[in-house]
Amino acid sequence: MLRAACLDLPQGDEASADAVRRRQAELTKPPGSLGRLEQLVAWLAAWQGRAMPRLDRVEVVVFAGNHGVTARGVSPYPASVTQQMVGNFEAGGAAINQLAALGGARLRVVPLTLDRPTQDFTEAPAMDEAAFLAAVGIGMAAVSPGLDLLCLGEMGIGNTTVAAALCAGLLGGDGARWAGRGAGVDDRGLARKIAAVDAGLDRHRAMLADPLQVARTLGGHELAAILGAVVAARHNHVPVLLDGFVCTAAAAPLARIAAGSLDHATLAHVSAEAGHRALAAALGLEPLLQLGMRLGEASGAALAVPLLRAALACHTGMATFAEAGVADRS
Amino acid sequence: MLRAACLDLPQGDEASADAVRRRQAELTKPPGSLGRLEQLVAWLAAWQGRAMPRLDRVEVVVFAGNHGVTARGVSPYPASVTQQMVGNFEAGGAAINQLAALGGARLRVVPLTLDRPTQDFTEAPAMDEAAFLAAVGIGMAAVSPGLDLLCLGEMGIGNTTVAAALCAGLLGGDGARWAGRGAGVDDRGLARKIAAVDAGLDRHRAMLADPLQVARTLGGHELAAILGAVVAARHNHVPVLLDGFVCTAAAAPLARIAAGSLDHATLAHVSAEAGHRALAAALGLEPLLQLGMRLGEASGAALAVPLLRAALACHTGMATFAEAGVADRS
Repeated sequence: MLRAACLDLPQGDEASADAVRRRQAELTKPPGSLGRLEQLVAWLAAWQGRAMPRLDRVEVVVFAGNHGVTARGVSPYPASVTQQMVGNFEAGGAAINQLAALGGARLRVVPLTLDRPTQDFTEAPAMDEAAFLAAVGIGMAAVSPGLDLLCLGEMGIGNTTVAAALCAGLLGGDGARWAGRGAGVDDRGLARKIAAVDAGLDRHRAMLADPLQVARTLGGHELAAILGAVVAARHNHVPVLLDGFVCTAAAAPLARIAAGSLDHATLAHVSAEAGHRALAAALGLEPLLQLGMRLGEASGAALAVPLLRAALACHTGMATFAEAGVADRS
Repeated sequence: MLRAACLDLPQGDEASADAVRRRQAELTKPPGSLGRLEQLVAWLAAWQGRAMPRLDRVEVVVFAGNHGVTARGVSPYPASVTQQMVGNFEAGGAAINQLAALGGARLRVVPLTLDRPTQDFTEAPAMDEAAFLAAVGIGMAAVSPGLDLLCLGEMGIGNTTVAAALCAGLLGGDGARWAGRGAGVDDRGLARKIAAVDAGLDRHRAMLADPLQVARTLGGHELAAILGAVVAARHNHVPVLLDGFVCTAAAAPLARIAAGSLDHATLAHVSAEAGHRALAAALGLEPLLQLGMRLGEASGAALAVPLLRAALACHTGMATFAEAGVADRS
């Protein structure tokens, strides 16, 4: 059922994208001179299926989860911080609250059984089938119908270790290639992250040929929810902004199941985390922002919303050469 | 007088920047995890001279000028488009109108004697002393006192050729190194741009040791105004966002007069224009955005305003660890 949903993906509406490109050619600017902004409007049009796309209903959804692998000393913060930060999100005190508000986006926070972390993947599969499918289902259900744009993000102490394990499991390479300093571990903490990833790869090697089994055995609840949300967004004609390393890693199994599965998703930013640039390159995702951020929480995705609004404002608000009485190229 | 104003520049207020950094260390996020956003708030604080910076009064100023060098066939658009685009700015139909509005910035357009272009610099100095100082003075006068941020940009058919000549005159290299396709010239147009730059360098070689004389002989009215505005902003404690290739080239003479002269300026974006990346690197300017834009009009600068607002919103709106009851690193 999940596998079928991942394989049977609707395609973008090229007629709408073409209508955008035709209008862009008439606007008072040299052709292509708004660069990526022009491509973003065509992308929104294709995946919304609207010749004149909208950004009236934008949501940021932050999934939160806890991770058994924190027992390996992979984070400088205690696992209890996940729940505390969920409280901070609900009270409006986190970065994502400010960034979502500035982007005109509604923020929703979805904690996933924080009192029941995943298993430590160095010792057992992170999730059994039921837990994995439940998390994916929560992510699918979190996609409101009729959204114009969905920004995805996560919170989970220890989850850059999980993201590194997912990348290694899906794309090859070992812990040293994919693990970085996350929220700021020291050299010894980084060594523990690397060792944990390598141990996880060893334990679940038989699963690595199947991307969904990689997501189950080496992943996490909030990552599985992101995967579900990305699939549901595709089926609901909702373009997606992906946030940082963990969020991108969570969506990566889809790209391994079928090429083009992430075409409705744009990478909002590339983070300072070591593996994110390599992951983005492997998936062919070109980030909108490169500002050395490494916070998660959908912060980079929310920060990119004003760029999309700017792209759309130019598209809808600019005069054509004819309207403005400006001479086109000679 | 101008030279003295360029040399006697006030420094940033490090105490205000330090106050920002102290608060940042207490906010509910791993240290440094907002990356460049954190540095931007400290930069605003230093140059506004306020421990809690503001973005209440933001202006975009677009200077427009015409160029004798257009006689060399360096642009696919006729010079009359400069005036037509000024009309488009005034009517609200250009990209910058949409982007300034989205950034919450007031837009001002300052045309400089559009009916009197500069001289063709392949034949004569672009400006005599009086015309150059008049243009610089108009730029200085365009900086409203009490601004919190100034975005600078330009409009002027032919002015990427002028910018290339300025770069070559200030930094070395020839026309082939600095000239690009600008608003979209074809191969033959590009060859004409390169030839024009090389001819200008030959004609004014005796002037190249003095950055202000380079700005006068190879520059343009709107570029001189930008130079004046950058200097006046520094004296008035107004941080500056620089736009694309032409805008950065216009400010470049200041960096050649004295190191640190552009410390109160942040490069909003790096354009698709060939020379801009090299110029930014030569001046040590790290762009906020890299979106393949090449429109000018302060479009990249205005697009970066929401990033600064986001940085400031996080700084002012986030809870501290103590306020939120979140455990800091163990």
